Amino acid sequence: MAHRIPVVVQVIEDFSKWYTDVLKKSELVDYSGVRGCVIMRPYACSMWENITSILDKRFKEIGVENVSMPMFIPESMLQKEKNHIEGFAPEVAWVTHGGQEELTERLCVRPTSEVMFCSHFSRIVNSWRDLPKLYNQWCSVVRWEKSSRPFLRSIEIHWQEGHTIHESPGEANDFSLKILNIYKEFLEEKLCIPLICGKKTESEKFAGAKITYTIECMMKDGKSLQTATSHYFGNEFTKVFNVKFQTKENKSDFAYYTSWGITTRTIGAIIMVHGDKDGLVLPPDVAPIQIIIIPIKDSNEVKFKVSEVFNLLRTKYRIKIDEKEESVGCKFANSELRGIPIRIEIGPRDISNNVFVLVRRDNRKKEICKFETILEKIECTINDIKLNLYNSALKRFNSNILNLNSLEEFEKTARIRDCFIKSYWCGSEKCENYIKDKFGYGSRCIPFEENIEEGSCIVCNKKCDTKLYWAKSY
Amino acid sequence: MAHRIPVVVQVIEDFSKWYTDVLKKSELVDYSGVRGCVIMRPYACSMWENITSILDKRFKEIGVENVSMPMFIPESMLQKEKNHIEGFAPEVAWVTHGGQEELTERLCVRPTSEVMFCSHFSRIVNSWRDLPKLYNQWCSVVRWEKSSRPFLRSIEIHWQEGHTIHESPGEANDFSLKILNIYKEFLEEKLCIPLICGKKTESEKFAGAKITYTIECMMKDGKSLQTATSHYFGNEFTKVFNVKFQTKENKSDFAYYTSWGITTRTIGAIIMVHGDKDGLVLPPDVAPIQIIIIPIKDSNEVKFKVSEVFNLLRTKYRIKIDEKEESVGCKFANSELRGIPIRIEIGPRDISNNVFVLVRRDNRKKEICKFETILEKIECTINDIKLNLYNSALKRFNSNILNLNSLEEFEKTARIRDCFIKSYWCGSEKCENYIKDKFGYGSRCIPFEENIEEGSCIVCNKKCDTKLYWAKSY
Repeated sequence: MAHRIPVVVQVIEDFSKWYTDVLKKSELVDYSGVRGCVIMRPYACSMWENITSILDKRFKEIGVENVSMPMFIPESMLQKEKNHIEGFAPEVAWVTHGGQEELTERLCVRPTSEVMFCSHFSRIVNSWRDLPKLYNQWCSVVRWEKSSRPFLRSIEIHWQEGHTIHESPGEANDFSLKILNIYKEFLEEKLCIPLICGKKTESEKFAGAKITYTIECMMKDGKSLQTATSHYFGNEFTKVFNVKFQTKENKSDFAYYTSWGITTRTIGAIIMVHGDKDGLVLPPDVAPIQIIIIPIKDSNEVKFKVSEVFNLLRTKYRIKIDEKEESVGCKFANSELRGIPIRIEIGPRDISNNVFVLVRRDNRKKEICKFETILEKIECTINDIKLNLYNSALKRFNSNILNLNSLEEFEKTARIRDCFIKSYWCGSEKCENYIKDKFGYGSRCIPFEENIEEGSCIVCNKKCDTKLYWAKSY
Repeated sequence: MAHRIPVVVQVIEDFSKWYTDVLKKSELVDYSGVRGCVIMRPYACSMWENITSILDKRFKEIGVENVSMPMFIPESMLQKEKNHIEGFAPEVAWVTHGGQEELTERLCVRPTSEVMFCSHFSRIVNSWRDLPKLYNQWCSVVRWEKSSRPFLRSIEIHWQEGHTIHESPGEANDFSLKILNIYKEFLEEKLCIPLICGKKTESEKFAGAKITYTIECMMKDGKSLQTATSHYFGNEFTKVFNVKFQTKENKSDFAYYTSWGITTRTIGAIIMVHGDKDGLVLPPDVAPIQIIIIPIKDSNEVKFKVSEVFNLLRTKYRIKIDEKEESVGCKFANSELRGIPIRIEIGPRDISNNVFVLVRRDNRKKEICKFETILEKIECTINDIKLNLYNSALKRFNSNILNLNSLEEFEKTARIRDCFIKSYWCGSEKCENYIKDKFGYGSRCIPFEENIEEGSCIVCNKKCDTKLYWAKSY
């Protein structure tokens, strides 16, 4: 595979084929031979490390501490909370044998760790003085999905799962919104992805939660990707696990609970929001390589200048020199395929003119720049790339959100395109299912908007003051 | 549990009880209710994060890249290499059901990932130009152990596993030694732990490897803890997985393979090498909190000075102010229990004298220091703590290694103490087992020493020029 001329990936018309093509050719993943489990190659791993390090820092800034829970959960523990087990039982992997022996109780490989955290909390919390506990873990979980697609839906999922307990319902709910806001800022500012956020409907919320907050991002094909969720549980869940504490007023109460998570889906979102026919287009803040230097000739003069530039920029940027024995054209194509934000070309003529060539991946603009202002130029370009990535995505995003009022309009739209549709909704599961069954558009979220005037449900025409986003989804 | 006065842990005489006591009371772990799997609480997690970040940086400096492999391995894939499966089959956890369905092929939860890496290598390597591949992953693995003890032997193990392939046997073997040296430096310089390293005997080496290099550390009770290993495989293993490449000479060969790992055992080693009757004693480079400030009075003046000192030191050190509503005595005991290297006490009288009190955890020395030279004082103290921790451990280490020449001496020694014994050994498994069965001392490693004069095997008296370390082990 390596060192061959990268084949230009398929045009974006067959989006699904394009996605798979980009994954393989940019060397993000390799298929492992285990259904639903991919190998994250160094390029994907490095992107995930950049993502986790930004988020981990943010979580720690607000007092979150990391812990590590066992990957196995005994069946009896999982079964304690009724709604939770109903949600997860159909999709867990069961360990039944250890070595040659059959286990007396089956263990599931964690699909999520609410029960582990709550049972731990019950052992370490006694009083309001022990609260809040703000915990998180970076790990992988397993859900036995029927179909899979790298980064979007898989059997093994790499993620972080946060679990916190609080003294009061208000504090817990505020915390779950605080986390949602961290996700939102991260996606908008670091990944340059516009989004909608809001609450899930009753039928779409997390098994066992009271409220599920969600962030939904629009992919280039108009479909929605649920990219992060934050759940508020009240204290029903903690009651089951006896997470009791003595209140300031010397009474007894059960702690109020939240959980929240974001996964390697973010990598899928980056690909499907910014990618183009030539491959990946990576946001600078998480790109494994932010700048690649391509020497145009193999001379000592060029080598010297290249290493001078490399040393100047290496302390501030993730930078690499492409020294492979390949043609320059091949290197250009490769840097595009891998979505490296900035390409610097240095040849003998450039050196004699005291300039270098800078090529941006996002808009492909080529510019001749002076060496003497290289630091300012790079900084300014990185910022401009981020702005341009976000704005381009936002333009597409805005032109693919439609406010509709009738089923006729819905039908007409759904027949010709995939997009986000916003409409009034009466709140009933029946109307929600109607749209889903008829058009394949699921309810994505109830946006956070106040003072909505009354309107009528797009399905049943009942008067209501709730709006809902509908979309096809991954 | 929280906010109670920490009970002084048991004296070190019952070492095993002391270990368990320290783990619980210093809030490193909680028992999860899942056999052989503990919860790493924030304090342990933070220590592990410090360990991983130091090692990850070192690995990356020599060109190692991180990847992420699936946690499941199909039975047929595990069975490909005969020695490997024989070594691991008795101790793997088997997933037999996904959701309600029985799987057509069982999957094991990875006990280690040699087969996954080799099967990946076979797909991505064609030519000598693709070599070396230097990969690593941070993850957890599962081995179905009969008995367990936090950080020492457990069913779920957190670790890193490195896997590399090379063009030649020499390059591969050199690389596995290079890694052993990184482990050695890390343990000696960062964890302040003296050690021995060398080769495992045939019967003790890793399943499928040609050579296993090991690092053995001596715990306070005189037992050995195998703390890191690095394996050289030759190309037998890669043959099985068809990791074939075209050589520079246009011939075909199978790649030469290494794997290497270090686990959370390092945390166990820290506890059992440096800990004392009052709890943990942590080496500054990995301590979650390096400095704790304890305000002696709750006045504005003290608060102001405390926060001034905190702000001065926070950019360079992991520092915390103990502001809990507890007695000062309780805070002192707690800082000792948690092994925080430096304690700073600040009270009103200190402020008026322009001084603070500095207490070291390692030697308990208390010193009155001037505020004006605080930065130099802390830097110098941290270095001295590291030196003192290493030297104290080294003194004990040296006085517990005995060179013995006869079974009589061995028997006499083994009857009264646990220590490291070095002796001549003829190389036969029979003599190795004799010592093991008779005294419970296993072979730990054949040290890297050259020009050993001839001597006679401590068991059979046969002439030989190999020495071996013997010890009881965890």
